[in-house]
Amino acid sequence: MIYLDNSATTQPLPEVLDSYHKVSMNYFGNPSSVHHLGSEAERLLGKARKQASSVFQVDEKEVIFTSGGTEGNNMAIKGTAFMHQTRGKHLITSSVEHPSVLEAFRALESLGFEVSYLDVNNEGRVNPNDVEQAIRKDTILVSLMSVNNELGTIQPIQEVGKLLKNYPTTLFHVDHVQGLGKIPIAIKDFGIDMCTVSGHKIHGLKGTGALVVQNHVSLFPLLHGGGQERRYRSGTENLPGVTAFVKALRMIEEEREISGADLLQLKESLQKQLQNIPGVYVNTPAHSAPHIVNFSVPGFKPEVLIHSLGEREVYISTKSACSSKDSNVSAVLQACRLDQEKTTSALRVSMSYLTTHEEINTFIETLHGAIQELQPTMGRSL
Amino acid sequence: MIYLDNSATTQPLPEVLDSYHKVSMNYFGNPSSVHHLGSEAERLLGKARKQASSVFQVDEKEVIFTSGGTEGNNMAIKGTAFMHQTRGKHLITSSVEHPSVLEAFRALESLGFEVSYLDVNNEGRVNPNDVEQAIRKDTILVSLMSVNNELGTIQPIQEVGKLLKNYPTTLFHVDHVQGLGKIPIAIKDFGIDMCTVSGHKIHGLKGTGALVVQNHVSLFPLLHGGGQERRYRSGTENLPGVTAFVKALRMIEEEREISGADLLQLKESLQKQLQNIPGVYVNTPAHSAPHIVNFSVPGFKPEVLIHSLGEREVYISTKSACSSKDSNVSAVLQACRLDQEKTTSALRVSMSYLTTHEEINTFIETLHGAIQELQPTMGRSL
Repeated sequence: MIYLDNSATTQPLPEVLDSYHKVSMNYFGNPSSVHHLGSEAERLLGKARKQASSVFQVDEKEVIFTSGGTEGNNMAIKGTAFMHQTRGKHLITSSVEHPSVLEAFRALESLGFEVSYLDVNNEGRVNPNDVEQAIRKDTILVSLMSVNNELGTIQPIQEVGKLLKNYPTTLFHVDHVQGLGKIPIAIKDFGIDMCTVSGHKIHGLKGTGALVVQNHVSLFPLLHGGGQERRYRSGTENLPGVTAFVKALRMIEEEREISGADLLQLKESLQKQLQNIPGVYVNTPAHSAPHIVNFSVPGFKPEVLIHSLGEREVYISTKSACSSKDSNVSAVLQACRLDQEKTTSALRVSMSYLTTHEEINTFIETLHGAIQELQPTMGRSL
Repeated sequence: MIYLDNSATTQPLPEVLDSYHKVSMNYFGNPSSVHHLGSEAERLLGKARKQASSVFQVDEKEVIFTSGGTEGNNMAIKGTAFMHQTRGKHLITSSVEHPSVLEAFRALESLGFEVSYLDVNNEGRVNPNDVEQAIRKDTILVSLMSVNNELGTIQPIQEVGKLLKNYPTTLFHVDHVQGLGKIPIAIKDFGIDMCTVSGHKIHGLKGTGALVVQNHVSLFPLLHGGGQERRYRSGTENLPGVTAFVKALRMIEEEREISGADLLQLKESLQKQLQNIPGVYVNTPAHSAPHIVNFSVPGFKPEVLIHSLGEREVYISTKSACSSKDSNVSAVLQACRLDQEKTTSALRVSMSYLTTHEEINTFIETLHGAIQELQPTMGRSL
């Protein structure tokens, strides 16, 4: 099996699953319980939080463990909107965000908020000047992703964070789900107020993640209750999930330092090989994350190619998993103003640090073969 | 170790952890992915949903998997409020609900909703007549728990559900977190529109649970995004968590049928033995769940007794874990109008089907010994 859909989800590492299993067995107490089993669990939770805060270089209290990226994004966006609506009801995001960001904003529009969706250039990149021009006196939030999940485009987070320092009543949220472990971001230095990360995209477990919320930020919680996680995320802490997430986090960050350059090289090799296949157009721009390559094969329905590759146990995807079943058109590629032939025939390869040169070579051969085999039936000469 | 804090959380069963582990390893694909690994995961998710729906005797689509009880309660309460606020902004609950219900209602009050908190009798029970009298034309929701988490009191869910059938614009939500696997409720027959359940209270895993939402109900989602879970709960499905939850669900329901009467007998024996200890008052009423016994030892600080028992590896709790660190006063016992001596000295024993007669006997001996030993230092003659 050659798994190249790591932006949809990753295979959990054995070390991560081991950590989950051990904590489930040996630290099953409720961290809020007064007795010994409770305080042991609380201590372990504190240790995990400290480790995570060290990776993110933030205070311990600034790490809020969540059930994943969608929760983190909704919590940051709706939490800001509900908490600060008396100060203003205008919000800014881009047109190429993940559905968990875009749909959260659309939901807020239905509740009377106003949202500016920034255009992107033909590489899917937001222009920091556009952010500044969109800011109004009543703008309470700017939300941008660090890495686009379909294209791999890296957004100018540092530049936007820098300019937002001149607008202290506008909070800055970054959806770092696709960027975590792939491109470094310095939350405090970049002026990021809230940062969403997810476990299952970094060989961690589904149902795990965190939202980093700087101490000066106040949010209206989505989940009220026992007041866990700085009162921002009530509910019995998923301690096995938390420790597994932190394990995955530390491992991916270590891997990024060791193997980041290799992965980038692998991506560049993949891009070149794809460009050499007649009829294949690479959509991913030069300045992009080291793990995602988006390309189009005009004239071919994406699901037909995916099925054909799947028969050879090579797994890639159409755009993002979270919107893959809606239609063939990629809204992200449309926003980049690619022509319709490309927006309806896009495919995504997303690698991990486990991906090898051999796998990429096999993928290229398999794709080439599939295109040649399917060409007559697709009624198109290439 | 004698663990008698099962209402706070339970030790996961090995079968449940096995299921989690296997699915994490073998079905790691994203159920939304178009390729084979995705459709395999989707199929397994469908199977789990079907099994859960069979336990709850509802349609498959009516099972929404969540990250736990707090999420289920918040989703039902806020989701109803945000969705139906144009029809009315009045909500009804009781004064003895779990913090994840009470705090969700208080948050809604801060957003302009009006909430009636029903009183309870001295056994902690809501009077169905009070529910009916509180209903107004603009009442959109009644939310009650099936079993009180501190006292074990069983609420008249069936009666309330029956009378609410005369008020078709008022939805009925039941927090069944403490009742699941202990007392049977028939969601459809009882007229329950939404029902919250949690995995980690039934020897399942933390971070898992479900909200049953009948097909005729529409909710404003807390988590927007990819549209998973009938669009009510977006986010990559936690498939290992879901299958583990359903495993635990099926096992506890089987256990309830086999051992329900035994557990009730064990509780009654425990109540009798507690009543025989001088200075101990049992607060749990006769008509109550088979696993919870609440009692007070006036003159003794709960945490001192818990510490003393803990030294002998006997683990019980003060009131609920979710409010255990706030103060010694139990709001639930206050609502029952117990005198202050009892509301500030309450302890809770919560059993599971794994609890044995021997453990209960040892607990009684240990408690008795601790009371006698601590008596002089607590300055009280019993």
